[in-house]
Amino acid sequence: MPPRVAVFGAAGFTGALTARLLYRHPSLELRAVTARSDVGRMLDDLYPHHRVPLELEELDLDRHADVDAAVVAYPHGAAAPVVAGLRERGVRVVDLSADFRLRDPAVYGRWYRDHQAPGLLGEAVYGLPELYREEIRAASLVANPGCYPTASLLALAPLARAGFVEDVVIDAKSGVSGAGRAPTEKTHFVTVDENLSAYGVPRHRHIPEIEQELAALGADVCITFIPHLVPLDQGELVSCYVTLPEDAVDSGSLEDLYGEAYADEPFVELSATPPGVRDVRETNICRISVHRDDRTGRVIVFGAIDNLWKGAASQAVQNLNLMLGLPEDEGIGVTAVSERRAVR
Amino acid sequence: MPPRVAVFGAAGFTGALTARLLYRHPSLELRAVTARSDVGRMLDDLYPHHRVPLELEELDLDRHADVDAAVVAYPHGAAAPVVAGLRERGVRVVDLSADFRLRDPAVYGRWYRDHQAPGLLGEAVYGLPELYREEIRAASLVANPGCYPTASLLALAPLARAGFVEDVVIDAKSGVSGAGRAPTEKTHFVTVDENLSAYGVPRHRHIPEIEQELAALGADVCITFIPHLVPLDQGELVSCYVTLPEDAVDSGSLEDLYGEAYADEPFVELSATPPGVRDVRETNICRISVHRDDRTGRVIVFGAIDNLWKGAASQAVQNLNLMLGLPEDEGIGVTAVSERRAVR
Amino acid sequence: MPPRVAVFGAAGFTGALTARLLYRHPSLELRAVTARSDVGRMLDDLYPHHRVPLELEELDLDRHADVDAAVVAYPHGAAAPVVAGLRERGVRVVDLSADFRLRDPAVYGRWYRDHQAPGLLGEAVYGLPELYREEIRAASLVANPGCYPTASLLALAPLARAGFVEDVVIDAKSGVSGAGRAPTEKTHFVTVDENLSAYGVPRHRHIPEIEQELAALGADVCITFIPHLVPLDQGELVSCYVTLPEDAVDSGSLEDLYGEAYADEPFVELSATPPGVRDVRETNICRISVHRDDRTGRVIVFGAIDNLWKGAASQAVQNLNLMLGLPEDEGIGVTAVSERRAVR
Amino acid sequence: MPPRVAVFGAAGFTGALTARLLYRHPSLELRAVTARSDVGRMLDDLYPHHRVPLELEELDLDRHADVDAAVVAYPHGAAAPVVAGLRERGVRVVDLSADFRLRDPAVYGRWYRDHQAPGLLGEAVYGLPELYREEIRAASLVANPGCYPTASLLALAPLARAGFVEDVVIDAKSGVSGAGRAPTEKTHFVTVDENLSAYGVPRHRHIPEIEQELAALGADVCITFIPHLVPLDQGELVSCYVTLPEDAVDSGSLEDLYGEAYADEPFVELSATPPGVRDVRETNICRISVHRDDRTGRVIVFGAIDNLWKGAASQAVQNLNLMLGLPEDEGIGVTAVSERRAVR
Repeated sequence: MPPRVAVFGAAGFTGALTARLLYRHPSLELRAVTARSDVGRMLDDLYPHHRVPLELEELDLDRHADVDAAVVAYPHGAAAPVVAGLRERGVRVVDLSADFRLRDPAVYGRWYRDHQAPGLLGEAVYGLPELYREEIRAASLVANPGCYPTASLLALAPLARAGFVEDVVIDAKSGVSGAGRAPTEKTHFVTVDENLSAYGVPRHRHIPEIEQELAALGADVCITFIPHLVPLDQGELVSCYVTLPEDAVDSGSLEDLYGEAYADEPFVELSATPPGVRDVRETNICRISVHRDDRTGRVIVFGAIDNLWKGAASQAVQNLNLMLGLPEDEGIGVTAVSERRAVR
Repeated sequence: MPPRVAVFGAAGFTGALTARLLYRHPSLELRAVTARSDVGRMLDDLYPHHRVPLELEELDLDRHADVDAAVVAYPHGAAAPVVAGLRERGVRVVDLSADFRLRDPAVYGRWYRDHQAPGLLGEAVYGLPELYREEIRAASLVANPGCYPTASLLALAPLARAGFVEDVVIDAKSGVSGAGRAPTEKTHFVTVDENLSAYGVPRHRHIPEIEQELAALGADVCITFIPHLVPLDQGELVSCYVTLPEDAVDSGSLEDLYGEAYADEPFVELSATPPGVRDVRETNICRISVHRDDRTGRVIVFGAIDNLWKGAASQAVQNLNLMLGLPEDEGIGVTAVSERRAVR
Repeated sequence: MPPRVAVFGAAGFTGALTARLLYRHPSLELRAVTARSDVGRMLDDLYPHHRVPLELEELDLDRHADVDAAVVAYPHGAAAPVVAGLRERGVRVVDLSADFRLRDPAVYGRWYRDHQAPGLLGEAVYGLPELYREEIRAASLVANPGCYPTASLLALAPLARAGFVEDVVIDAKSGVSGAGRAPTEKTHFVTVDENLSAYGVPRHRHIPEIEQELAALGADVCITFIPHLVPLDQGELVSCYVTLPEDAVDSGSLEDLYGEAYADEPFVELSATPPGVRDVRETNICRISVHRDDRTGRVIVFGAIDNLWKGAASQAVQNLNLMLGLPEDEGIGVTAVSERRAVR
Repeated sequence: MPPRVAVFGAAGFTGALTARLLYRHPSLELRAVTARSDVGRMLDDLYPHHRVPLELEELDLDRHADVDAAVVAYPHGAAAPVVAGLRERGVRVVDLSADFRLRDPAVYGRWYRDHQAPGLLGEAVYGLPELYREEIRAASLVANPGCYPTASLLALAPLARAGFVEDVVIDAKSGVSGAGRAPTEKTHFVTVDENLSAYGVPRHRHIPEIEQELAALGADVCITFIPHLVPLDQGELVSCYVTLPEDAVDSGSLEDLYGEAYADEPFVELSATPPGVRDVRETNICRISVHRDDRTGRVIVFGAIDNLWKGAASQAVQNLNLMLGLPEDEGIGVTAVSERRAVR
C-alpha cells in the first residue's frame, strides 16, 4: 500500500501545484486537499490545467491527519499551528511557509511576528536537498525554502564553501505567480504588463533566510538583496554579484568549482551561457552559470528556477520523496542533462 | 521659415521614431527620411502607428544635405562617414550611434573597431542635456548617449559629483526594442516571451561610455554592468548598487542631494517608490528613486526610461532643440511633474 | 477664459485617461476630478504615467457643478443620477456609461436594470461623431458609445447604409483594460497571461446597443456578438462576418463604398491589409479593412481601436470638442493619414 | 527490444517537441534526429528546455531509415520525397506536413503546388484519432492534421455528423509558435507584443483540409475561416459560428450530442464555460464548449488546443502509438478529466 499524503492549503498557487504533482505521483496516494477559501469547489474548477478532480475540504485535523505525510501550504504565521497539530499526531510534514526556516525565533520575530510553535524549531530541517540531503532523509519536519533563497543559495553555495563570499549583491527578478493568487492592484494584468520595477526595497523577508544559510556554508555576510517584478507568470532569475579578493580564482577554476559541486545533482544544471527562465519552466531544475569579470575581479553567478516548482511545489515533493525513502526524482518530471553532456 | 531637418537611417526603430517626432514638431520641417533598406517604401507602411506619410529614399548627400540639421541613426561604424559628410557640408548633426560618444579613439578601437573619423571627435559633445546643456547649445555635432548610459548616468550623477561612487554594480533590464528591428533568434517572440536572461556578459559595449562620464563627474571607477532582456517592448530599468563609506550620507541627505540636483530638470522625475518602466513609457522622462540600506550601508538607485525615447529618439530631439535655440521640450511631449508636486 | 470642465469618476481607467487628456487640452481648463474610491489621493500617485497632479475629491454637486461641461465616468446605473444632477444645474455632459445609450428604457431594463432617469433619454444623443456629428454639436447630453459598439459600428456602417447587412457575426477581441481597474480573478496577470478565451457567451450587454444603431442605419438585424479576452492591455479588434446576397457587391465596389464613407473623417483610417491594434494604440483612430471572400460570398470587415481611447476617453473629448464648438481633434493627438495617402 | 524511431526535421518547433516526447517515451527508442539547418549542433543547445542531448545529423536515408517508424517534420512540399524514400524502405511514417492530408492531388495543387508523390495518397490516412482511430491503427502512412483543422474538426464533428452544419464561420486565434521558428518581421517580439490582427485573409491553406473532413462527416459546406495572431507563444482557440435551421436542437440536446460523441475520448474534454488556451497548454487535450444563442438560433462552439502539442507533435505521438499497437496515451502526459467528473 503506497504512503498516503494530503495537501493542506491547496487553493493557492503552490498548494494546488503540489496537489497536481502528488495526484499523479506513482508511489503516493493523495487522500485529501483542504483549503481555507473555496471549500466545496472542485480543484479542477479552480485550476483546470492541473486536472485534479478532488473537492477542496475544510481542514479537520482529526480526520485529515490520517496520512503518513502532509504538505502544508499556508501563509506565514498561519502554518505553525497546523504543522504543530500534524506533528502531534505523528504526521511527517513539509511546510511551504517561512515558519520553520529560521532557526532563531528571535530573528523570525524581527522579520515576521512572534513565533507560534518555537518548540518545533529544533526538529525542523532546512529543505534544500542539495545542501541537506541526509538530514532531510531523517527528518520529520522539513521547512521548504523560499523561492529566492533556493535560487540564491544554489547559485552561491560553491563560492561560499570555498570562502569566496565576503560581499554580495543579489539582484532578483520574479514572475507574477510569486505574488500569489490574491487579486490586488499589484497583480492586475494592466499593472504588470509592459512594466518592470523593484519592490520590497530594501528589506525583503527572504534576506535573513539567505544570510542564515550562507553563514552555515561559511560565509558570514550581510547581503544586499533586491527583488523585481517582471511581466511573466512563472520563472525567477537571480543575478549574484560577488566581490572577490583579487586573483582569488580564475575562470577555469570557477568552472571546476561548480562542476565538482554539482556533478551528481539530479536537479542542478550548469550552463556556459546565462540561463533563461524559460529553460527551467515547469521543472524542478536550477540552471546556473558562473562568470568572472577580469576588469573588476567580480564573479557573477546567475541562477534560474521556476518559482512555483523548484521554488516551492516540486521541491516539496523532492523533499517528501527523500523523507519517505522513494527515488528523489519520482513524480517530479525531467532531470538535468548537463552532467550527461559532460560525459559525452 | 522653420529650420529644415532630415533623418538618415529612418527604417530602424530609433530612426523611425525620430522621424515621427520631427514630422509633428511645431517648429521644424522634416524634409527627408533616408534608409539603407526598404528604399521606396512609405514610412507609414513600415510603421503604421507612427503615421509619417513620407517615402524612404536612398541617401544622396548632395541632395539631402540641404538642411539645417540632421539626425543620423546608422549602426556603429557606418555612422561616422555619413556624419563626416554632413559636417563637411555644414550641417549640424545629432548622431545616435556610438561613433562619437567616446572621446579617446583608442578606447573606441578597443571596444568597437578602428575609428573612421577621429578628426571629428574634438568637436563632438556628449548629448546628455542634464550634464552638458550649455555645451550642447553651442555644438555642431552631438553624440546622443546610449540608452543604458542615459539611465545609469542620470541615476548616479548626484552621487558621483558628491564623491560617493567608489564602487558600483549596475544591473540593467531592457525591453526587446533595444535589440533593434532585425529579426533574429534572439528577437523571435517565442524566444523572449515568458523568458528572462542576461546577455553581453561580462563586457557590454556601454561600459566604457558609462565609465568615461562617471570619471568626468569625479568618479574614476571600474564598473560592473550586466544587462538583461525582459519580455516587454519599450522600457529600461537600471538598478544601481553603490558601496559607500559607512555613514557617508543618511537617507534624508540622499533625498536632498537628488532633489537639488534635479529641481529644475524638465525631464527628470523623482519618486519615493521604485519607478516602473510603464511610468515613463513613450515619454522623454527619466524617473529616479534613491534608497539607503542601513543594514549594509549600500545606496540603491533606480532609474527608468523608455529606451526608444529618452534612450534614443526623443533625447535626440531634445538635443536638436537645444542646438537650434528652440524650447527644450518642444515636440517631445509631456514633462516631469515631481517638481510641481514638491511645491504644493 | 477657456471653458471649465470636470471629470466625475476619475479613479477608474477611462475617467483617469479622460482627466489626462483634459488636463493638457489647449482650450479647456480642468477644474476638478472626483472619485468614489481613493478620495484624497493624488491622481498621479494612482496613475504616474498620466502626470495629472490633481487631488481626487469626493463628489459635491453644489461645488463641482460650477463648470461648463463634465465627463461622467461612473458604472452603469450609478451614472444616471449624477448626470441628472448635472443637467439640472445646466451642465453639458458626456456620459461614459451605458445609461443613456439605449433609446428605449424597456430595452435598457431588460439588459441592465430599471432606468434611473428615463426623462433624460429624449435629449441624449448617441456620441459616435462619424454617425451623429451635427446632433452632437447641438447636444447637451451625449451618451458615449461602448468600446465594442464603436469599433463594430464604424466597421459596419457603410455596408449597413447600403442595405447589405442582413446577417452578421461579430467576433470581438479586447485587451484587459476593458475589464476595468477592479482586481479580480479574471484580471489577475496569471489568469490572463498566455491565455485566450471567450466571455459573456452568448448575451453580452453591448448587443442591444449595436443592434439599435445598425437599425438606425437601415439594418434591422439580430446579431451574433462574442467577445474574447486577449493578453494585452489596450486594444480591441472586431472581425465582422457579413453574409451578402450573392454578387451584391464586388471587391472594388466595396473599397469605393468605404473610401467614400470615410474620405473626410479625421479619425477613421482605411487599410488594404488587416489592421493590428498596435496601429491605433493610444490614438482616437479606428483603422478599418474590408475584404470579400469570393468562395463564400461573405464580406469580412476588421475594425481596430484602442478601447480606452476611441472606445472611451478620447472619443469623449472628441464629443466635448464638438459640443463646445472647438476643433474636433483638439487635445486628442494624431489624426488619420490614409486620406492623405490617397491624395499623393 | 522497443521499436526504434527517428525524427526527420527536428530543428523546427514541432520536430523538436516530437523529439522531446519520443526521447522520454517509455516504449520507444529514439535513434536519430536530423535537420536541414543546424547540423552538428546538439538539440539541447537549440532547445535547452527540451533536454534532448542528441546531435542533429544531416539526413542520410540509407543510414537513418533503419528504424521501425519515423516522424517527418519538413515543410510542405519538401516532405513528400522524404516520406516516399522512407516508405520505399518499409518505414512507417507520420508526416506533419500538408503533403498527404488532401486526398485529391488536384486540390493540393490548387492550394499548394504540384504534388511530389501522388502515388502515396491512396495509402495515407488522415491522422485525427478521434475520427479515424481504426484506420490509423492499420496505417503505414499517417498525415498528421494541421493545427487549425484539429481544433475545428473536433469542435464541429458532432454537429456535422448530426447534419446540422449547413454554414459555418470559424474565427481562429493562434499563438506565435504556429508561425514557426524562422525569425521574420512577423515573428519579431516588437511586432507581436501588445498586438492582435488577422492574417491569411481570406484564403488560408487550412480551408480545403477542413472542408474535406467536414464533407466526410456529411457536411458538404464552403466555410469561412479567418485566423488571427495573438501575443502568446503556445495555444490556439477556434470560435465556430454555426447557422442552424431554427429549433433544430435545444441546449440540452446539444450537450448530450457532445457528451455522447466524446464520452470515451482520452484527449477531448468538455466544459460548461468557454475554454482558455491555458487550460490545455502543454497537453494533447482539446477542450470544447458548446453554446446555443436563443436570440439568433446560432450555435457557437469553442475548441482550444496547444498548437504545438495536439496541433502537431503530441498528436503525432498519439498516432505513432496507435500504429505500433501501444497504449494510445503513452509518453504524451495527462489525459482529459471531464469524463471522470461525469462519473462522480
